[in-house]
Amino acid sequence: MTYCIAASLNEGLVLVSDSRTNAGIDNVSTYGKMHAFETNADRKIVLLSAGNLATTQAVLEQLKRDKLKDAKININSVDYLSDAANYLGQVSLEKQKQHLDTEGQSAFNPSATFIIAGQIGNEPPGAYMVYAEGNSITTSPHTPFLQIGEIKYGKPVLDRFLKLDTPLDEAARCCLVSMDSTIRSNASVGPPVEMLIYRKDSFRLDEYYCFEAENPYMVNLRKSWESTLREAFAKLPPLMSQYAKPLEPDL
Amino acid sequence: MTYCIAASLNEGLVLVSDSRTNAGIDNVSTYGKMHAFETNADRKIVLLSAGNLATTQAVLEQLKRDKLKDAKININSVDYLSDAANYLGQVSLEKQKQHLDTEGQSAFNPSATFIIAGQIGNEPPGAYMVYAEGNSITTSPHTPFLQIGEIKYGKPVLDRFLKLDTPLDEAARCCLVSMDSTIRSNASVGPPVEMLIYRKDSFRLDEYYCFEAENPYMVNLRKSWESTLREAFAKLPPLMSQYAKPLEPDL
Repeated sequence: MTYCIAASLNEGLVLVSDSRTNAGIDNVSTYGKMHAFETNADRKIVLLSAGNLATTQAVLEQLKRDKLKDAKININSVDYLSDAANYLGQVSLEKQKQHLDTEGQSAFNPSATFIIAGQIGNEPPGAYMVYAEGNSITTSPHTPFLQIGEIKYGKPVLDRFLKLDTPLDEAARCCLVSMDSTIRSNASVGPPVEMLIYRKDSFRLDEYYCFEAENPYMVNLRKSWESTLREAFAKLPPLMSQYAKPLEPDL
Repeated sequence: MTYCIAASLNEGLVLVSDSRTNAGIDNVSTYGKMHAFETNADRKIVLLSAGNLATTQAVLEQLKRDKLKDAKININSVDYLSDAANYLGQVSLEKQKQHLDTEGQSAFNPSATFIIAGQIGNEPPGAYMVYAEGNSITTSPHTPFLQIGEIKYGKPVLDRFLKLDTPLDEAARCCLVSMDSTIRSNASVGPPVEMLIYRKDSFRLDEYYCFEAENPYMVNLRKSWESTLREAFAKLPPLMSQYAKPLEPDL
């Protein structure tokens, strides 16, 4: 399994991904899921991937080749991030189809999902989630983040906290807590945790972090978060006994 | 969908359940999922249910009939909560099997899961989760809670906070936050939220709450929690720039 987050906010982007890959619970490996393209100077584009590792590797390889041979459509030729997402979706579909038999069935699940994020030219930064079916969605002002992989454990904290005007550094901490919650609750998501903060119009990918399991900052963040939660519960309004009543047996 | 929690702690039990049932997203109804038995004075037993509504209703009906006709095994005859869980599992299997064809297949999914919780005689209070397959598990000192239904959204806050020695009132607030997070993130889980606090050796079910969507306490709890989270993120340790480095393009 995998867990990746992309927050697309007024100040720019926060991308976070785990590094655990498993083929069954007894075959666990470490693979980074955050990949950056070497591109023309007018753009910065980063991919996050989830799903079948063979498919994601084949897709990445194809995108790299298309770029190197300057194919008609490639990551340097597209003018919009949404075009990049469509192109990625088509390549992904193509790679998945290679594993279907004549009846359109596959002996395994070759599906993969991606997040493609970055900034091209004068367009604002953005992020798109590309489904296994090849279509894609982007963020909205009410939901300024995308998730792929094991999304449920880490969603409430993003739902409650991330707004368009959240400062990038706070959003980064929120995404790290979301990731930490998921790692704690699901053994198929694991460190190292990669994080990239991209500031709007900077066209620089120089705020990249790779946190190993015992990285002192992550340990500190987790402890601080848990002690804060403990205080938070103590401060929540006490139950009001006027609402209490007997539970009437119905069986 | 459904979400139910049972926390089994030193001071007693906290049980929380939602009330939304849906057959497809366009057929949503309100059904309570917390049911108490009218029993002999030496025990208090409460059920939480998730899954196919026809199955859970048939199981509850059977348990009630067995008790009324004083069957050989019934909710008043068992000496241990684990025996009650086994009995419930057998009845559940039997009801599910009625919907299988001769090849053991069903045109729909009749499965259901239950939590049975309470206290019998001199035994300590406890809780068991009964799987659709009829077997069951209980809590442990390291994992003093059980969940059924849509469990993932609300799990991290329980994982981080609930310990055996958590006071019941704090545990109740924690379970309500877990439920509120799930309601917020998943439209198939919804109010009213039912909660029962059972204090060890009390043999009383008189701390029962039923919170409608706009119940002032729940509104207050949600607001208080969100503002506390906001402060918590502001207080988390700032990212340490010495860990930042450029993300090297690999594509």
